[in-house]
Amino acid sequence: MSDIIVIGIAGGTGSGKTTITQEIVKSLGSHVTVITHDSYYKAHHEMSYDERIKLNYDHPNAYDTEMFVHDLSSLRQGEVVECPVYDYTIYDRSENTLTVHPSRVIIVEGILIFHYEEVRDLMDIKVFVDADADIRILRRITRDVKERARSLDSVINQYVTTVKPMHEAFVEPSKRYADIIIPEGGQNLVALEMLIGRIRAHLNS
Amino acid sequence: MSDIIVIGIAGGTGSGKTTITQEIVKSLGSHVTVITHDSYYKAHHEMSYDERIKLNYDHPNAYDTEMFVHDLSSLRQGEVVECPVYDYTIYDRSENTLTVHPSRVIIVEGILIFHYEEVRDLMDIKVFVDADADIRILRRITRDVKERARSLDSVINQYVTTVKPMHEAFVEPSKRYADIIIPEGGQNLVALEMLIGRIRAHLNS
Repeated sequence: MSDIIVIGIAGGTGSGKTTITQEIVKSLGSHVTVITHDSYYKAHHEMSYDERIKLNYDHPNAYDTEMFVHDLSSLRQGEVVECPVYDYTIYDRSENTLTVHPSRVIIVEGILIFHYEEVRDLMDIKVFVDADADIRILRRITRDVKERARSLDSVINQYVTTVKPMHEAFVEPSKRYADIIIPEGGQNLVALEMLIGRIRAHLNS
Repeated sequence: MSDIIVIGIAGGTGSGKTTITQEIVKSLGSHVTVITHDSYYKAHHEMSYDERIKLNYDHPNAYDTEMFVHDLSSLRQGEVVECPVYDYTIYDRSENTLTVHPSRVIIVEGILIFHYEEVRDLMDIKVFVDADADIRILRRITRDVKERARSLDSVINQYVTTVKPMHEAFVEPSKRYADIIIPEGGQNLVALEMLIGRIRAHLNS
């Protein structure tokens, strides 16, 4: 534990997790290391593309928790980690890795990171970013349709069939493990200032 | 605004508001001024005791908002305030007042303080303390039956007829105005440390 703190930033799709993380990085720069849980989707080289696209990527079992816990533990102990890189175009882990250097502040971002007890146990501060479901789906639509060139129908279909049910089954219940809940994510300057102040206090200690 | 910050601590009955406030005062002592919204129940000298006990004390209209806003504004401007004292034995404002001296940190505690826009506008940091409804009612029973010598039946009756419906109508919806939400109140050391750190940063600025 000692000198390195791990801060988990969880919350549903479109809640503002990434904005919060970006604001922290903007304020504290190189003092902060960020790892994303989505990088740890399981590798499925044994499956065909058609099989892989049918998997439920919003379920806790979609992630390689053993590898994630291993790497996060290493970072927490001050070790360099070769972080996996997920390739969304083929729905599989790529052959590349990303070399991640530890720092005194490790930020872990992900929708489901509070679901796993062994992941929670590695975090000093658990932040859940919250927003109304209607605002979240609007943000997701904007992102997926405008930035990722997906059709509105496919976004809606995925939301209704997996994203929403998995949110209700796993993401929302994991909120109870949060130390603090931040409503309205990255727009919430009061909460952001408090969180950044807490991290800065650690860096100055 | 300037040199004095006002921190609102809201949350339902039994949520842990008072514990959080006490922990802040324990850490920061005389640097902090606390005022309680409950002190500002309306005076009803024109009514009989029998009329007064029938009032709904969990509704926003039970409070003297004009007086509360006046006094909080005064404290925020660094003025001494003669705070009203509510006498629960007669269900009316007493003739006494409490002299409250301002300090650089004003904490405002109350179930409904985020309900009123004019009160929200006077706060720099709005903290909502949250806990499950079953835990909250158990705490309320413990407090009212053991410490206030009330009968279990009367506590349950009041809870079901006014406390719970008013919570759902006014307290729970006011949560959306919070800057941060603290689950599990005074037991939540991570959140408490963050909040106290934020206040300390203000005191050192």
